[in-house]
Amino acid sequence: MTDRPKTPLLDRVSLPSDLKSLSDVDLRHLADELRSETISAVSATGGHLGAGLGVVELTVALHAVFDTPRDKLIWDVGHQCYPHKILTGRRDRIRTLRMGGGLAGFTKRAESPYDPFGAGHSSTSISAALGFAMARELGGDPGDAIAVIGDGAMSAGMAYEALNNAGHEGKRLFVILNDNEMSIAPPVGAMSSYLTRLYAGGPFQELKAVAKGAVGMLPDALQEGARRAKEMLKGMTVGGTLFEELGFSYIGPVDGHDMEQLLPLLRTLRARADGPVLIHVVTKKGKGYAPAEAAADRGHATGKFDVITGVQAKAKSNAPSYTAVFAQALIDEAARDDRILGVTAAMPDGTGLKQFAQRFPRRCFDVGIAEQHAVTFSAGLAAGGMKPFCAIYSTFLQRGYDQVVHDVAVQNLPVRFAIDRAGLVGQDGPTHSGAYDIAFLANLPGFVVMAAADEAELVHMVATAAAHDSGPIAFRFPRGEGTGVEMPERGKVLPIGKGRMIAEGKTVAILSFGTRLSEVMAAREALMARGITPTVADARFAKPLDHDLILRLARDHEALITIEEGAIGGFGSHVAQLLAEEGVFDSGLRFRSMVLPDAFVDHDAPQAMYDTSALNARHIEAKVLSVMGVEALDTRRA
Amino acid sequence: MTDRPKTPLLDRVSLPSDLKSLSDVDLRHLADELRSETISAVSATGGHLGAGLGVVELTVALHAVFDTPRDKLIWDVGHQCYPHKILTGRRDRIRTLRMGGGLAGFTKRAESPYDPFGAGHSSTSISAALGFAMARELGGDPGDAIAVIGDGAMSAGMAYEALNNAGHEGKRLFVILNDNEMSIAPPVGAMSSYLTRLYAGGPFQELKAVAKGAVGMLPDALQEGARRAKEMLKGMTVGGTLFEELGFSYIGPVDGHDMEQLLPLLRTLRARADGPVLIHVVTKKGKGYAPAEAAADRGHATGKFDVITGVQAKAKSNAPSYTAVFAQALIDEAARDDRILGVTAAMPDGTGLKQFAQRFPRRCFDVGIAEQHAVTFSAGLAAGGMKPFCAIYSTFLQRGYDQVVHDVAVQNLPVRFAIDRAGLVGQDGPTHSGAYDIAFLANLPGFVVMAAADEAELVHMVATAAAHDSGPIAFRFPRGEGTGVEMPERGKVLPIGKGRMIAEGKTVAILSFGTRLSEVMAAREALMARGITPTVADARFAKPLDHDLILRLARDHEALITIEEGAIGGFGSHVAQLLAEEGVFDSGLRFRSMVLPDAFVDHDAPQAMYDTSALNARHIEAKVLSVMGVEALDTRRA
Repeated sequence: MTDRPKTPLLDRVSLPSDLKSLSDVDLRHLADELRSETISAVSATGGHLGAGLGVVELTVALHAVFDTPRDKLIWDVGHQCYPHKILTGRRDRIRTLRMGGGLAGFTKRAESPYDPFGAGHSSTSISAALGFAMARELGGDPGDAIAVIGDGAMSAGMAYEALNNAGHEGKRLFVILNDNEMSIAPPVGAMSSYLTRLYAGGPFQELKAVAKGAVGMLPDALQEGARRAKEMLKGMTVGGTLFEELGFSYIGPVDGHDMEQLLPLLRTLRARADGPVLIHVVTKKGKGYAPAEAAADRGHATGKFDVITGVQAKAKSNAPSYTAVFAQALIDEAARDDRILGVTAAMPDGTGLKQFAQRFPRRCFDVGIAEQHAVTFSAGLAAGGMKPFCAIYSTFLQRGYDQVVHDVAVQNLPVRFAIDRAGLVGQDGPTHSGAYDIAFLANLPGFVVMAAADEAELVHMVATAAAHDSGPIAFRFPRGEGTGVEMPERGKVLPIGKGRMIAEGKTVAILSFGTRLSEVMAAREALMARGITPTVADARFAKPLDHDLILRLARDHEALITIEEGAIGGFGSHVAQLLAEEGVFDSGLRFRSMVLPDAFVDHDAPQAMYDTSALNARHIEAKVLSVMGVEALDTRRA
Repeated sequence: MTDRPKTPLLDRVSLPSDLKSLSDVDLRHLADELRSETISAVSATGGHLGAGLGVVELTVALHAVFDTPRDKLIWDVGHQCYPHKILTGRRDRIRTLRMGGGLAGFTKRAESPYDPFGAGHSSTSISAALGFAMARELGGDPGDAIAVIGDGAMSAGMAYEALNNAGHEGKRLFVILNDNEMSIAPPVGAMSSYLTRLYAGGPFQELKAVAKGAVGMLPDALQEGARRAKEMLKGMTVGGTLFEELGFSYIGPVDGHDMEQLLPLLRTLRARADGPVLIHVVTKKGKGYAPAEAAADRGHATGKFDVITGVQAKAKSNAPSYTAVFAQALIDEAARDDRILGVTAAMPDGTGLKQFAQRFPRRCFDVGIAEQHAVTFSAGLAAGGMKPFCAIYSTFLQRGYDQVVHDVAVQNLPVRFAIDRAGLVGQDGPTHSGAYDIAFLANLPGFVVMAAADEAELVHMVATAAAHDSGPIAFRFPRGEGTGVEMPERGKVLPIGKGRMIAEGKTVAILSFGTRLSEVMAAREALMARGITPTVADARFAKPLDHDLILRLARDHEALITIEEGAIGGFGSHVAQLLAEEGVFDSGLRFRSMVLPDAFVDHDAPQAMYDTSALNARHIEAKVLSVMGVEALDTRRA
């Protein structure tokens, strides 16, 4: 896209050990080059930009001071790891980020020994780091454990659980709180306000440090000749009490872009710390790249872009995204029913609830990265007579699973789950796959589980969920654009547990659950050219199942194939159970269930991931031929 | 068991509204009577005793001051709710606690309007209460929301997520922190130490209160003539900063057994609070009943007992409990391998890790009620080269599901999951059923999922897990006693993915996964008397499946029946998928999969719950007859 930046110092660094010979001044210049290289790389690949730019200095300082990979450096979420990847032997592949066969967009154990613990979801780093620290204490792998966690990620209960446990254990452990006042959206919650108050008093020209433990660590900084050590002590104020109360020594806030603060501080702490230490570092997301700094999300994620102008090369869109369709449909329903509320766990943009919140600010709740709370809070809202739509990606709903079972399903409360990012999601890879929700929801008594076959169906399912007051209901839909079908003026309430016939045929019936329907129809086209005309139906519901439809399809055809964008245990398994119980297998039925494969599918374009998963039209076609015993013919043709 | 206590005041109270006419002195006496009645009732039924005794005064005070059920009183976990149930129209059934058809041992919406939100699992109350509070603000059900949560439950991240969100919303909400320095075991973690420090200065003869909000609330108490209001102000000390930093007004600590403190304080707060308030109440678990106070767990849960002596009527035990067998087997393995560690989330007793910790104190981690952290911490330990056994009940593992997927399975880390309380658990009812773990683990790539058919098998599975270093592995086993089989001297490492033949037969094969095996064998006995001899096999593994065994059973029999102690989507679904893919159904196979029913099974004796679930010997027998087409005969006989 743009000329590569000049990076004379960076060109001499192939591994973190190369940093050891650089002076502090050189390290500062290296950080500047690393920033340019990060911008250049992401301009070519797209990806997460802002978070990485915010930790460029921190990345250099940590690798310069600590002894990675012996010391375990754990980046929370991992989307800020591009500079880290560039410094740890992966610069030559940095322009393959998030592409098929290329570098992952997050840290990944399989990719490098410098990634001791992979991520993708938020707020796991302190738990993992404590695991490494305690393993070390008990004779496992040696080395320090350092977690770098954002302030947004601190709203998750998991981070608190880990702090609570680490403070109790009292062993040496470094937690770097990277406070950029942003997760993806601006963070919410009382913790965020608290962190802001910690440094609200003034600028960060000097180090401020308190806590008995921290004071004990500082004199050495003086002896080491840190230029501003005097100010460090002078600038100390009361702060960080919350972390001290949890058993941590608290140091900070410190300017995370000032290498002259970072380097001596980290060196001193590395030499001196004998318990858990929390270092409060203040950074700016998108730092050093004007278009990112100016963006509302600080350049969180971006497509390919022009480095000079910051303008993104947007793919042309033919159909609205499922997310946008959901958002508009929910707004429409909410305009007619003031009991409809929206709940998101720190994903107002991703879930489309931002639009809902703009229209109905009092009726939308962003609870922070807190899926457990989001689900039970929604259950409380429902018990209080409201109609909450709890909008959570499939992969993140895993975080609230017990709450779905225990607080929603057992109590049969009418919480509506809008499950975005169902199925394979593309560049974010296996940590973000929405593979398990059908299986883990459809076996809960009383749950209604729907999947939209296209964006018009999604509108109907929003209406259906709004109208369903007798228990929990969920509808899932994928990332990306719809199929371009004509949109209904208004969603209609679907009959619960009833599918729909899409195309009549004979011999073979294909029963689809979700957006594979278009692939099924493409396969049908191809098969018709060969004289085979399958019947196609859209199940709409994985629970309750449409018994009549399924038994009719089984009775009227020699073969029945189910397909879904989910792992085994979901829709196909429920259909198999019905067929077994009804004795349909007793006299023979060529039954097949097409599900996601028993493997974590690596990041790639979604279409390519479905290809790897054998769930595209050509695989459906092959499955039909195989079940009809004509696979040999097909192989010859190919 | 013992004479009923004299309860003249309590006899006049059938609903909380009856408390309104009682004087404060009468309320104090009423609390004494309520304590006696609670002890008497639990002596007859068994159940959770200590927690209820600790909140007798609080229960009376809350119902006297607030307007339940219009005001929503939410007991966290709910095992402290027996006094509450006695006061809220359920006294006549209190001696049916936890019995089939009787009162639930936890709060339950379906049971009473005075239970606005059911529980069973810990740390959900603040989220639910905030849901009610925000519903009220938006025109839903009116009334106050009051969460009563123990200090142990505060170690869960979910509670922190809710505090964080509630502090941010800033609406009127009452959180009563019931600090008894005990959850089930003594609580662990830095938060617990913090709470202790808050009142470590001295006795609780006076109210201590700080925080701007709280000070603003107090003057009225003076005007209301609270006898000790002067001391309230005089006794104020600095404390509760952590909660204030999260946006709550903090009041306390206050002596939770002193009605003269509780009543005026709650009245004042009810009249004055205009934001979230945390009231730190210090109580004694087991208060007022010497045998409970003296017990290590403060009388947490008990069988029936003699009120005078406190001696429990223990059922005679013929075989060791699965939990004890697991604990001993783990100790044996750990004695030979110092990399083996134990991790529990606040259940050292329940999981048997207490014994492990006594033998290997440095190698056992109680991380608090923090399943999310427990799982990822275990993943970190494994990544650091250790062999963690993460021992969590099936139902509580739901709390760490995302971490199982994201941190363990995606990274293929060798964490060992010891899953106790698999299947139906009896008196604790549906909130504690271990119904979903097979389904939600067996669809994760790379996972090994085992179930023990008896206690000897469990010993082998512990050895197998210890030896399995190539990825995650789980083994499940039920609550209660083993079958009394001969125990091996040492566990042997089982071949991964291989089942075992139990009894040869013909026509019908039954493939069992878990402890239904003894019921299967009983059914086989009964069937043999009718001339039918089924083949029986123990699958041992739900993943990987024993393809050879399953296909052989299918090939050599007309019918194949699977059975498991789990919901649909698990073992039977995986077998069905294999049979479908292999084309076994094409030419007919009488396949059936016996799983837990699509309903939440109410509390009862486990045997009775399995009867309701149609998973006992007679149901297996009937299923075999039905699949052989002889059900008509059977019905005639019956």
